[in-house]
Amino acid sequence: MNKLSNDEKKYLLSTIRDVQNFPKPGILFKDITTLLGDKDAFKFLLDHLENRYKNANLDYIVGIESRGFILGAPLADRLNIAFVPIRKPHKLPYMTISQKYSLEYGFDEIEMHVDAFEKVQNPNVLLVDDLIATGGTAKAACELIREVGANLKEACFLLNLVDLNGTKELEKYCPIYSILEV
Amino acid sequence: MNKLSNDEKKYLLSTIRDVQNFPKPGILFKDITTLLGDKDAFKFLLDHLENRYKNANLDYIVGIESRGFILGAPLADRLNIAFVPIRKPHKLPYMTISQKYSLEYGFDEIEMHVDAFEKVQNPNVLLVDDLIATGGTAKAACELIREVGANLKEACFLLNLVDLNGTKELEKYCPIYSILEV
Repeated sequence: MNKLSNDEKKYLLSTIRDVQNFPKPGILFKDITTLLGDKDAFKFLLDHLENRYKNANLDYIVGIESRGFILGAPLADRLNIAFVPIRKPHKLPYMTISQKYSLEYGFDEIEMHVDAFEKVQNPNVLLVDDLIATGGTAKAACELIREVGANLKEACFLLNLVDLNGTKELEKYCPIYSILEV
Repeated sequence: MNKLSNDEKKYLLSTIRDVQNFPKPGILFKDITTLLGDKDAFKFLLDHLENRYKNANLDYIVGIESRGFILGAPLADRLNIAFVPIRKPHKLPYMTISQKYSLEYGFDEIEMHVDAFEKVQNPNVLLVDDLIATGGTAKAACELIREVGANLKEACFLLNLVDLNGTKELEKYCPIYSILEV
């Protein structure tokens, strides 16, 4: 499937801002708000995602709260399919399934509605988030999607922090597409 | 500007699920995940928003974390303009301005990047969220948008809980459009 050329990657990466020492000292944070705030870059990114997935026969985009919503919801709209949010605990009002995952210290948890995919039998699903770091959240999201019996066709990330090797564990679940590797 | 007919409102409202006793006993929660999970309803809503705002000469959609992202980001894409997130504290990595607002008990706070609109001089902005209840969050968002000197052309909500009268205070800031009143 369709990927960006090196020049296209350079352009898109140039629209993302590096912020030093966020969220804590020594971390270089990739700030995608500058991409979102640049209408040409935002359109370029969504054109690319639409081109890549337009013939993938997808039924749902699943986005992880909350930056995954900003990329996943417009992609669902471009493909004329539905959007399913995976959220932090106690945010989804109906019956949910949940999955814990490890953080550097302690645990966190994400949830999905049990009937998220009920409109389509045997649905094809794309998972979307802005970033894969250690892959803990993404892996938990894959477990949730599997648990309800959907076909996880691919997991798509705008940025992959390759040194953290987050894709290694995730490859057991589905193919992975990282638009930019940093 | 373009509004929905009563039949169109009935249709859209029928795709939103009522959940009893969430987030606490006695509250009837309007669950929009059933609308988002229905590709026809999701498209219908975005077609309507695009029609309403396509000639409004907007430069930015501002969405409030996190359900405002799910409606605001695709609308920005439809209009080929940029998207700016207003987020919970300590989520935005660059320099921010923040605004506190009252909750039933205590306070909460939202933030926006100081340079959110720097790509456009004297920008026209639409604020988008899924719901207006008491209007506290929306009012704080209007204050942030005003503080950076943008023109707040309208605030748009999918649902307005009219009994809570949230639009009353907000009318001082800009025109308000509620797609559905419940």
